[in-house]
Amino acid sequence: MSSRPGGRTAAVRTAVLAAAVDLLSESGVGAIELTDVADRAGVGTSTVYRRWGSKAALIAELLRDMAATSLPRADTGTLRGDLRANAELVAKTLSDDRQGPLFAALIAAASYDPDTAEALAEFYRSRIDEWSACVDDAVRRGEAPAGTDAAAVVRAVSAPLYYQWLLLRTPPTQDDVRRAIDATLAAVAAGVFTVRGRPHPDSV
Amino acid sequence: MSSRPGGRTAAVRTAVLAAAVDLLSESGVGAIELTDVADRAGVGTSTVYRRWGSKAALIAELLRDMAATSLPRADTGTLRGDLRANAELVAKTLSDDRQGPLFAALIAAASYDPDTAEALAEFYRSRIDEWSACVDDAVRRGEAPAGTDAAAVVRAVSAPLYYQWLLLRTPPTQDDVRRAIDATLAAVAAGVFTVRGRPHPDSV
Repeated sequence: MSSRPGGRTAAVRTAVLAAAVDLLSESGVGAIELTDVADRAGVGTSTVYRRWGSKAALIAELLRDMAATSLPRADTGTLRGDLRANAELVAKTLSDDRQGPLFAALIAAASYDPDTAEALAEFYRSRIDEWSACVDDAVRRGEAPAGTDAAAVVRAVSAPLYYQWLLLRTPPTQDDVRRAIDATLAAVAAGVFTVRGRPHPDSV
Repeated sequence: MSSRPGGRTAAVRTAVLAAAVDLLSESGVGAIELTDVADRAGVGTSTVYRRWGSKAALIAELLRDMAATSLPRADTGTLRGDLRANAELVAKTLSDDRQGPLFAALIAAASYDPDTAEALAEFYRSRIDEWSACVDDAVRRGEAPAGTDAAAVVRAVSAPLYYQWLLLRTPPTQDDVRRAIDATLAAVAAGVFTVRGRPHPDSV
């Protein structure tokens, strides 16, 4: 154990967040309390209560940590390549034995706690922002219409993968990934994601 | 109270399912037990335990009941009109003060109980089947390419609405509905949803 206060604080934080990930992915959010997280982390319960105060606060910090440590956007040189990298990352995460149940637990937790819901939304907004730069680059390269709503394009790639996984409980396949990309690119080309004032000509 | 066994059984079932909907939409799935449902329904706890046995079994029956009593597909005469009716129904359901929290609770419950997950998936498969006929009709009318995967088209309309609602916690707007329809129609026209063997020509 380090005698430096910062080192000790950081070590506790790392151990507690790792324990939270373990327990959330193994048991879901309903089955755990801060005292279980403290036990798993090998940290005193009072330390965990003093620092985080509630399960919701701990989960919010976990989501901020996940956002800060997530992979950066791809930069393959084409919009298709970048969207493929994004879709493959989403599919891999949702299909992963540890990450899949972790995300399911976090999404479930958000449904009954408003603070967790806001932390989850902030996590996704931050990831969408990170990948939106791929679309902005594509607009600059002339691969997508001027005025394309970059965040809407990034959301469109993920949406069918999450839908299948959350509601139909089927992990995304390579065919699902291909379709998510092709469908999004067709909509981009048709101008569906251009901001208001430039509606799709077929739109009623 | 009816003295006919069938009438009594049906009345208990109706009261218990209505109580389950009330409690799930008010408190979420983690906060309720069969005994709470029995109290709310004004039915004996032993009756509820004998008939359903577990919360998961009750939720599975609720989902079957919801599938059986959901609205039939639209038949407006155009694919755009039918998909718009579908998207508006989804948006209305998710934005509803009672239905929205109910679906959030059911999706959360599915994340930690495999039987509930299967019942939820079956609910969505049944709804997708119902609306797939709209796409099959559109293929017959020449509005969509031969070989279009009807279920994939129906999923594509719902997916962005569920994504925003579940992950970003924003109820779908009219603009989201319009984009979901336009994006799906652009992908249909581009042949993205035609079955394998007819891949989109730009697909890598």
